[in-house]
Amino acid sequence: MKVVALAGGVGGAKLVDGLASILPDDELTVVVNTGDDFTHLGLYICPDLDTICYTLAGLANPTTGWGRADETWNALDSIGSLGGPTWFRLGDKDLGLHLERTRRLQQGEKLSAITSDFCHRWGISQRIYPMSDDRVPTWVYTDVGELPFQEYFVHRQCRPVVSGFRFADIDQAHPVPEVVTELEKAELIIICPSNPWVSVDPILSIPGIKSSIEAKCVVAVSPIVGGKALKGPAAKMYSELGINPSAFAVAQHYGQLLAGFVIDHLDVDFAGELIKLGIHPYVTDTIMRTRRERRQLAETVLEFALSLRNRPDQEE
Amino acid sequence: MKVVALAGGVGGAKLVDGLASILPDDELTVVVNTGDDFTHLGLYICPDLDTICYTLAGLANPTTGWGRADETWNALDSIGSLGGPTWFRLGDKDLGLHLERTRRLQQGEKLSAITSDFCHRWGISQRIYPMSDDRVPTWVYTDVGELPFQEYFVHRQCRPVVSGFRFADIDQAHPVPEVVTELEKAELIIICPSNPWVSVDPILSIPGIKSSIEAKCVVAVSPIVGGKALKGPAAKMYSELGINPSAFAVAQHYGQLLAGFVIDHLDVDFAGELIKLGIHPYVTDTIMRTRRERRQLAETVLEFALSLRNRPDQEE
Repeated sequence: MKVVALAGGVGGAKLVDGLASILPDDELTVVVNTGDDFTHLGLYICPDLDTICYTLAGLANPTTGWGRADETWNALDSIGSLGGPTWFRLGDKDLGLHLERTRRLQQGEKLSAITSDFCHRWGISQRIYPMSDDRVPTWVYTDVGELPFQEYFVHRQCRPVVSGFRFADIDQAHPVPEVVTELEKAELIIICPSNPWVSVDPILSIPGIKSSIEAKCVVAVSPIVGGKALKGPAAKMYSELGINPSAFAVAQHYGQLLAGFVIDHLDVDFAGELIKLGIHPYVTDTIMRTRRERRQLAETVLEFALSLRNRPDQEE
Repeated sequence: MKVVALAGGVGGAKLVDGLASILPDDELTVVVNTGDDFTHLGLYICPDLDTICYTLAGLANPTTGWGRADETWNALDSIGSLGGPTWFRLGDKDLGLHLERTRRLQQGEKLSAITSDFCHRWGISQRIYPMSDDRVPTWVYTDVGELPFQEYFVHRQCRPVVSGFRFADIDQAHPVPEVVTELEKAELIIICPSNPWVSVDPILSIPGIKSSIEAKCVVAVSPIVGGKALKGPAAKMYSELGINPSAFAVAQHYGQLLAGFVIDHLDVDFAGELIKLGIHPYVTDTIMRTRRERRQLAETVLEFALSLRNRPDQEE
């Protein structure tokens, strides 16, 4: 079964890791949000892409979910001692990636080609693509003005009150060509438990991506459990946008795109409302504390999706 | 006694360290070669300036003479594992400096201002200036073509045969204004035991610098001892340029600029020839293996210079 997963950072990386442990390598493609990419200290940094790649390469920091295991912080300490900016935590090993990627980008290579080469060197056999080689930085409208995403997310620690989002130049952006090809071949699209507003929406907003999956079997996993985001500001964003944060709100957000929606036992009460929306619910344990739980959830999602594809009302 | 030292990298740093241990902080100014500055991995790197500053800050690697003590190499290892260039050895702590300096340069600050701020943060009380805020990269004419200095010096490990040097755009370069002021006030100019061709000549070639020291008491220390360079390719360069490498050749190189020249006991035979050139010789131990020897040589140079200034033929 050809599967394409749409993923943001930490939550996406966990489910992708589970999927990678089950699916044959050539059956999994991951399309990663690059809306939160930014330039810092002259380096082009792709937080979500790096989290996904580090995770699949077995290099990720198991505690934080982002960055690298066994990391050192000597460059950042040095920057700090010289009065420079240290709010974005860049470890030494991680810095090597940013330096080399920035060098190659400046030589005119595309982000997708560089990522593929890095994945090959890391021994990652699945296909990992940025959603686009064009830069489509996410801006956050807040009560203190419009902020670049990482300024909101890391520097200000999501404290400003959110009133909306903008993905700069996204109407002119192109999906990576291989993403288009893989989406055409895909039998199943999985929307990972990533932030709908700032991780998944940017991917779906790249012209051509949403339209190419509308006729596919799309299954999402809720990033909100019991009204709270497992990680990050998703629930806070829903509240500030005037929407009660819940798994149901996420399902409504994706709407008719979804064939199925995987929610946690804590949210079992939403099952009926999902059915009324025309979305098949599946209730399971969605919190992935261990690698075993990543694999379990991935198995559950794949089996659920397979059952949806085999239902008469889902036949193409 | 107001002293200005003209310095390149490791050899210069050693004598400067000795001078700094003797002179009151406000009596020592160091003007550093920036001809070997270059951009690598998007970072603006100033090898000589950093060696001088790390040495005076007590941060230098005592074994190599360049780079930092207790350094780690995780970023470079990461770059190497991704297939990137590792020929220029950048440690993690050192990288922090290059990242922060590059960030500030890109914001429009001058190299001299950034250096002064860094020195202040490092607790360096002497005045350390790059020779110019303009970029005047050294090119080396060789049997394999014209090479950027670091390409010749580090990447090709000085193997190409040298036929000449070019300091790009140096005719249009300006000395750092504070350098002009300090040279005007200086009672003694010390040319450190640095490479005459690629460390000292760039400084002397900045318009205004040589002319402002011609009437001063200028004393140099030979970087060539017993026909060999203590470090680096100076002797090899002399040979390839058709000149017998010797302390005497160095004195001839600087010519009438010098009032005095400090040579090693090994080169005592050149004393007579120096006198014929009109340059006062001083024979001593010039090899600085320990911090104590740095201080000893610095003391010797200062006393020698003072004796020259007190001679009737050197009175202004």
